[in-house]
Amino acid sequence: MLLHRSSWPEIEAFLTRSTSVVVPIGSNEQHGPTGLLGTDWMCPEIIATEAQKDADILIAPTFNIGMAQHHLAFPGTISLRPSTFIAAIGDWVRSLAGHGFTRIYFLNGHGGNVASIEAAFSEIYAEYSYTGRRAPFACKLKNWWDLPEVLGLANRQFPVGHGSHATPSEIAVTQWAYPDAIKTANYAPQIAPTGPIREALDFRARYADGRMGSDPALATPEKGGELVATAARGLIKDLAAFGAEIAP
Amino acid sequence: MLLHRSSWPEIEAFLTRSTSVVVPIGSNEQHGPTGLLGTDWMCPEIIATEAQKDADILIAPTFNIGMAQHHLAFPGTISLRPSTFIAAIGDWVRSLAGHGFTRIYFLNGHGGNVASIEAAFSEIYAEYSYTGRRAPFACKLKNWWDLPEVLGLANRQFPVGHGSHATPSEIAVTQWAYPDAIKTANYAPQIAPTGPIREALDFRARYADGRMGSDPALATPEKGGELVATAARGLIKDLAAFGAEIAP
Amino acid sequence: MLLHRSSWPEIEAFLTRSTSVVVPIGSNEQHGPTGLLGTDWMCPEIIATEAQKDADILIAPTFNIGMAQHHLAFPGTISLRPSTFIAAIGDWVRSLAGHGFTRIYFLNGHGGNVASIEAAFSEIYAEYSYTGRRAPFACKLKNWWDLPEVLGLANRQFPVGHGSHATPSEIAVTQWAYPDAIKTANYAPQIAPTGPIREALDFRARYADGRMGSDPALATPEKGGELVATAARGLIKDLAAFGAEIAP
Amino acid sequence: MLLHRSSWPEIEAFLTRSTSVVVPIGSNEQHGPTGLLGTDWMCPEIIATEAQKDADILIAPTFNIGMAQHHLAFPGTISLRPSTFIAAIGDWVRSLAGHGFTRIYFLNGHGGNVASIEAAFSEIYAEYSYTGRRAPFACKLKNWWDLPEVLGLANRQFPVGHGSHATPSEIAVTQWAYPDAIKTANYAPQIAPTGPIREALDFRARYADGRMGSDPALATPEKGGELVATAARGLIKDLAAFGAEIAP
Amino acid sequence: MLLHRSSWPEIEAFLTRSTSVVVPIGSNEQHGPTGLLGTDWMCPEIIATEAQKDADILIAPTFNIGMAQHHLAFPGTISLRPSTFIAAIGDWVRSLAGHGFTRIYFLNGHGGNVASIEAAFSEIYAEYSYTGRRAPFACKLKNWWDLPEVLGLANRQFPVGHGSHATPSEIAVTQWAYPDAIKTANYAPQIAPTGPIREALDFRARYADGRMGSDPALATPEKGGELVATAARGLIKDLAAFGAEIAP
Amino acid sequence: MLLHRSSWPEIEAFLTRSTSVVVPIGSNEQHGPTGLLGTDWMCPEIIATEAQKDADILIAPTFNIGMAQHHLAFPGTISLRPSTFIAAIGDWVRSLAGHGFTRIYFLNGHGGNVASIEAAFSEIYAEYSYTGRRAPFACKLKNWWDLPEVLGLANRQFPVGHGSHATPSEIAVTQWAYPDAIKTANYAPQIAPTGPIREALDFRARYADGRMGSDPALATPEKGGELVATAARGLIKDLAAFGAEIAP
Repeated sequence: MLLHRSSWPEIEAFLTRSTSVVVPIGSNEQHGPTGLLGTDWMCPEIIATEAQKDADILIAPTFNIGMAQHHLAFPGTISLRPSTFIAAIGDWVRSLAGHGFTRIYFLNGHGGNVASIEAAFSEIYAEYSYTGRRAPFACKLKNWWDLPEVLGLANRQFPVGHGSHATPSEIAVTQWAYPDAIKTANYAPQIAPTGPIREALDFRARYADGRMGSDPALATPEKGGELVATAARGLIKDLAAFGAEIAP
Repeated sequence: MLLHRSSWPEIEAFLTRSTSVVVPIGSNEQHGPTGLLGTDWMCPEIIATEAQKDADILIAPTFNIGMAQHHLAFPGTISLRPSTFIAAIGDWVRSLAGHGFTRIYFLNGHGGNVASIEAAFSEIYAEYSYTGRRAPFACKLKNWWDLPEVLGLANRQFPVGHGSHATPSEIAVTQWAYPDAIKTANYAPQIAPTGPIREALDFRARYADGRMGSDPALATPEKGGELVATAARGLIKDLAAFGAEIAP
Repeated sequence: MLLHRSSWPEIEAFLTRSTSVVVPIGSNEQHGPTGLLGTDWMCPEIIATEAQKDADILIAPTFNIGMAQHHLAFPGTISLRPSTFIAAIGDWVRSLAGHGFTRIYFLNGHGGNVASIEAAFSEIYAEYSYTGRRAPFACKLKNWWDLPEVLGLANRQFPVGHGSHATPSEIAVTQWAYPDAIKTANYAPQIAPTGPIREALDFRARYADGRMGSDPALATPEKGGELVATAARGLIKDLAAFGAEIAP
Repeated sequence: MLLHRSSWPEIEAFLTRSTSVVVPIGSNEQHGPTGLLGTDWMCPEIIATEAQKDADILIAPTFNIGMAQHHLAFPGTISLRPSTFIAAIGDWVRSLAGHGFTRIYFLNGHGGNVASIEAAFSEIYAEYSYTGRRAPFACKLKNWWDLPEVLGLANRQFPVGHGSHATPSEIAVTQWAYPDAIKTANYAPQIAPTGPIREALDFRARYADGRMGSDPALATPEKGGELVATAARGLIKDLAAFGAEIAP
Repeated sequence: MLLHRSSWPEIEAFLTRSTSVVVPIGSNEQHGPTGLLGTDWMCPEIIATEAQKDADILIAPTFNIGMAQHHLAFPGTISLRPSTFIAAIGDWVRSLAGHGFTRIYFLNGHGGNVASIEAAFSEIYAEYSYTGRRAPFACKLKNWWDLPEVLGLANRQFPVGHGSHATPSEIAVTQWAYPDAIKTANYAPQIAPTGPIREALDFRARYADGRMGSDPALATPEKGGELVATAARGLIKDLAAFGAEIAP
Repeated sequence: MLLHRSSWPEIEAFLTRSTSVVVPIGSNEQHGPTGLLGTDWMCPEIIATEAQKDADILIAPTFNIGMAQHHLAFPGTISLRPSTFIAAIGDWVRSLAGHGFTRIYFLNGHGGNVASIEAAFSEIYAEYSYTGRRAPFACKLKNWWDLPEVLGLANRQFPVGHGSHATPSEIAVTQWAYPDAIKTANYAPQIAPTGPIREALDFRARYADGRMGSDPALATPEKGGELVATAARGLIKDLAAFGAEIAP
């Protein structure tokens, strides 16, 4: 069930069946010469949309701009600074918690978001912790590649050349969902270099075409389809476990 | 051209042809008993996506959560507070301006966003105004219903019962785009009341089912299609005029 | 009754008769070659001060610095950025609401303030909306030229050359109140150009002497006196209606 | 010369003669059973207005709301929180410095403002200090009672019962300026108690009628007139010294 | 008792005996050619640590970075801007008050901190004042040199050449505590100049070696020991008085 | 070399030899029934202090309060919220970078700090990334337990019962440094439970005595000494590698 294609009475009704909600969250940032700028928000959106076809779960609109300051030297990247990102996540959570959602599950598509999302959770929880109140909700962050069985599959699909940015797995997912938008290029080197992440010009100086450690040529729509199916099953399972947690 | 389905080299190439970009912006909020929660961000997204099929214009990802504090008493609404919204718009603009975009055009789908978006523009401009520098970019806000010829069409389509929230015109647009998500209800009264907008519980007390002044039963997918076609043409034209402006 | 020329026991007593308060709010910014820098905060102050002579209404001190970033390239302009303005309005409202005022009426003298003031109201209301509480007060924004019968009078007084900044109507109001400060100049062109508003240097490049669309030579103290009298009556009436509203 | 009753060309001309500006700054807060709520912003405004009659100095509009959180339990008090106050002072200073003012002199009327104003100066200076740039302006805070010869006069006028809040000296100043607004009461005790300042309810519990250590019955308009004349002379002198400072 | 060398059950037990806590607070900033960069946070830490040997009082960890923007042109200085400092003090106070501490005593070692610390107290109190609640705690700021009998001793020890920054008294305290870190230099002039404090480059231009009005050559470890002993006794006494206060 | 026991000329001299600086950073929070509240800031301070005895490296004062909102239900915990923490780290970095430090190395002692510290780095870098400038410095975060060879040693020392909070390794480090502050208790259960981390009351409900997965009884001062020696060597090595990095 997609929240944004529902009416409010439908959400009111859903809340009598479940108080869990999934927020796909990612980033809009360069993904090398062939990856889509939207890759990191599309992947969790694709997976969550697929999962809700098979289970009575609720998917919120996609939080599509994240923390990508290090990619800003490549055109098309849009980034929030961490402080803005934290404030925005807070307002999403306050909105959803206000409706009675008690399990707010962020399905993340961008490694660079992790620190800010976790900081955002602590920022929200702190409102309760400083004042000695119990929060009536819990937040959870899960990267889609950490869903059950996904990493194993990706390792089998891409034993070498997976890397950490503009990876063949994420590109495969978008190829499966948007076959009309598949792009090709000659990669030089075939497998991109690796190293630290700092500010944007430093990043572009280190990683000339934007990739980190990856060979996107390995991606295929078929592999993407397998990843989506596996991740969707994993999401349903992981969300069920989160929903079944008993508060201490 | 959709920015998020492009690669960064494609955006780099686009910037040699044009430095204008369209950001669909809206809100995720209750739209009465039958309107989709996503109506306000879907409408500009639908129109912009349609427009880029006919013209070489660039559409950014949709800014889908806006200022909807007054709708928070209805489940499914997600709102940023104005200060968060202003900060986030600022980061979007800084990101896009950093790539060389000089015309940043927000196609808006939610009246409640207008004040915060305009305040955001002033907040960004002020960075230049306090320091005596020229801003290398200009921002523009346009509500989709204010695009050329759209209001005239809507008035002809809905001479009575248009109202100001959960209007038949916006619902028609989403019906055209998402026919599988058309919902029905008995509206009582047929045309909703009107009045002031304050905080969320006040709003719900005044507007029992969430509508303001509207009769959504008047919406049809066909009328929506006409609105989309007209608005898409208007967007192309209005954006061209914005892009052709000569800075003084 | 002027709040600032009262003692706290007098305000305590007033609150037993009425819980409405008027805050004149404006801006200190260039108003062309002859308009006073204080025009936009003086106008609502003048009108409100006049109104309280004829009715038992309470006028707060004037909020004299607003959002005028686009005028900063002209000496004497003082501006808050929107985020600061929103925070300050919030603190004013919290202070007044804490004393038991339930109707907080901002009589505004600057079009450029509107977005930030409305955003400020939403920011304050959001504190209640996120937490499911009713706000014990309501805020209202009214531009003085939108008070009953004022626009009609101004249109009759200035059928051409009114414009939108450094208008003859606002200059007439200050001429009536401060006849010793009337200034003259040769205007070239007689009626100033119009166009968009962006940052300060862009503004000065477009509007060489600071006016927008206006011919201030049309102003006279007598016309100002008529405007003040009409506006003062309108304020008393509009405030009474606001105070008489029944919360839903 | 009053900035707000001047046009921008007049300010432009003034800047060729002097780059100093005086900002009267105070607070709107309870001043005991008889003191005006506006006392603390009226006093510096009165003194500065008087001073500019005798010298070619420039007086900005009055910053009339300050840091008065401890007075909020008395009706009519309006307070900014320190963070808001600091942000607003920053925007005032940035605006004025942008026009070329190099000496920004705050004539203060409220002891409770001192910490926030000084913190605001440091906040603004820090923008320069972190980046190794010289600030092209200097800020100065002066309480009107600390102007040359004022304290000596006040001590002679009120050898006992001066106190620290709702003092006879500040009340005398407003009596001289607004004789129609003189109020009387029986003070019990005649001289109010003293003690610490914390939050608002604590304050009201300690200081039942709002005074601290003072006997306002000692105030007369005549004494107020002497204070104003002395302070106005002191302001002219102190401002001249500030303007004559040579940056190291 | 040092909070940081205690376990939480020990603090829980302490709270049954006393609800007062001392926070040593200072700054890490240049202290002339021979003073330690840590002087301003070490002094209150040294004094508080000494005091808790003789009395059952609780000392929190040292807040070691304060407001030192004016010293940033000298290497080794670390400064918070006032807004950051205020936010951080707020979080410390909220944490401690949440545990049941009702008397939060800041023993300060840096004059430049005073404005920001007092502003921070008002910022925290305002949360209560705007909402009509009593704060369950009180904050107090005391400079160590203002503790009973300390100033008298310092005046006797250093009748000339004490000055206001890099003073012989504070340097003596650190010499007593860290005799291995005593440094020497030829001071030219022997007694440093005095003047105003603005931004960092202005400061360095005025005060070439960082001192203000002081002759650090007068410091000895013995004098430092006397100061520490006197201040420690004063702290115990002053804290006892604070703890014994009855809320009104 | 300890920055705070140095004078500014000594730091100026150090900067000619090296532009790296180590900031020990931790948290002041409950560490179970026997762990010191200061454990998480003492550990990196102890290790860094030890390391600078053997190498010409510079150690800044300890950043002793971090992000510990989840521990606030245990007395003695002091926490910054993430937004405050990020702002403060930013000011530290700006101060140090302003002096010419190009490698700012945070040696961290608290897992709960990681997200906020990394977010802080991105926040600072973003100032450069949005404006297309190279940052003249790089920040690095290293947990002391991730220094070379430390984890291996800890695994050998504590093959079972290490856990993740109030671990025997961190307690051993403080036992070595502060043998007078060693505390004992009967642990029930001997090895604490594990689970998720949310807000403070949830945390206390899950982890009754504050430990997570650990058996602190395994700690000894001797094991602590081994850990310190190993970590100090690792720090020298890791910092050297960081300092030797060539910017791309």
